[in-house]
Amino acid sequence: MAILEAATRAIARHGVRGMRVEDIAADAGVSVALIYYHFADRAGLLRRTLEFISDRANRYTTVSLAADPFDKVSDMLLLELQDVPAVRENSTAWGELRASAIFAPELREQLRAATQTWVDEIADVVGQAGVAADPVEAAERLTSLVEGLSERWLSGSMTLERARHLLRGAISAEFRGAVGAEPGGA
Amino acid sequence: MAILEAATRAIARHGVRGMRVEDIAADAGVSVALIYYHFADRAGLLRRTLEFISDRANRYTTVSLAADPFDKVSDMLLLELQDVPAVRENSTAWGELRASAIFAPELREQLRAATQTWVDEIADVVGQAGVAADPVEAAERLTSLVEGLSERWLSGSMTLERARHLLRGAISAEFRGAVGAEPGGA
Repeated sequence: MAILEAATRAIARHGVRGMRVEDIAADAGVSVALIYYHFADRAGLLRRTLEFISDRANRYTTVSLAADPFDKVSDMLLLELQDVPAVRENSTAWGELRASAIFAPELREQLRAATQTWVDEIADVVGQAGVAADPVEAAERLTSLVEGLSERWLSGSMTLERARHLLRGAISAEFRGAVGAEPGGA
Repeated sequence: MAILEAATRAIARHGVRGMRVEDIAADAGVSVALIYYHFADRAGLLRRTLEFISDRANRYTTVSLAADPFDKVSDMLLLELQDVPAVRENSTAWGELRASAIFAPELREQLRAATQTWVDEIADVVGQAGVAADPVEAAERLTSLVEGLSERWLSGSMTLERARHLLRGAISAEFRGAVGAEPGGA
């Protein structure tokens, strides 16, 4: 939907605090009144945009047709590190939502729930492989790493290729059940 | 220095885009003119603040007296996940700087250099243990994970204890040389 795409773009470029309904209306080619009609207020628009961002990430990361759990998790996570506009915009807006949630209690619960959904999806596939000591832990570590690597890439501190390479190493280790044990164990 | 502490606080609370020299002057109890006298312009103040944030993180994470490389790296990284005001403020401002650098080319090079310094310090200690296949890779992965976990904790998607637990698992795996190899290797 054009309004939610425009809102995502606005958050990516100006942050949550700098998101202006007037700019979104202009970008989407609709009136400000129409936005208020659909979303009631700025908080309502923000809520639906966060949902849109989660759903869209979900769409572009669940296209994997791989049967093997390792390949499937690799596909799901590596698709977050792609140099295409939808992914760049989504990840940038997601980073802004995280940063803003620190001082915006109204965002925190929704962001926590969206994060949980993502973790559960990855944990489910990791669990199918039956190798990780604790699939939920593995999923929390891998998705947190994706967020950290994504921000480094987007902010110009790391190349995309390097971020993907580092992530692959971490996925392999989780799938060998090599993470989460005490030192000296292997 | 009071001005740089106030600037860090301002970035943490309002983001880089929302950082106002007037607010910083009021918070630090100095005149706006004094700030411009010291830092020339807003960009100069921002540059010195990023430096201050890196240096301060450096101070609170290098207090480890541990001789063993594993204990030392654990101390250095886990000190980034502490519920004390200086760490919260520093990490929040750091997250804002990362998010802003995406559209602020003037921040990117300095942020990249500060990240590199951090990675080099960790890689150096990891290397002393002589177990990781590639100490620089290990350091890049661990510091990226710290950033991801820190943002999850600060934004209320994860408890501090959980973040620390997940990080410990990742450090142990890197110190067993268990990360970065191909699947099926162990």
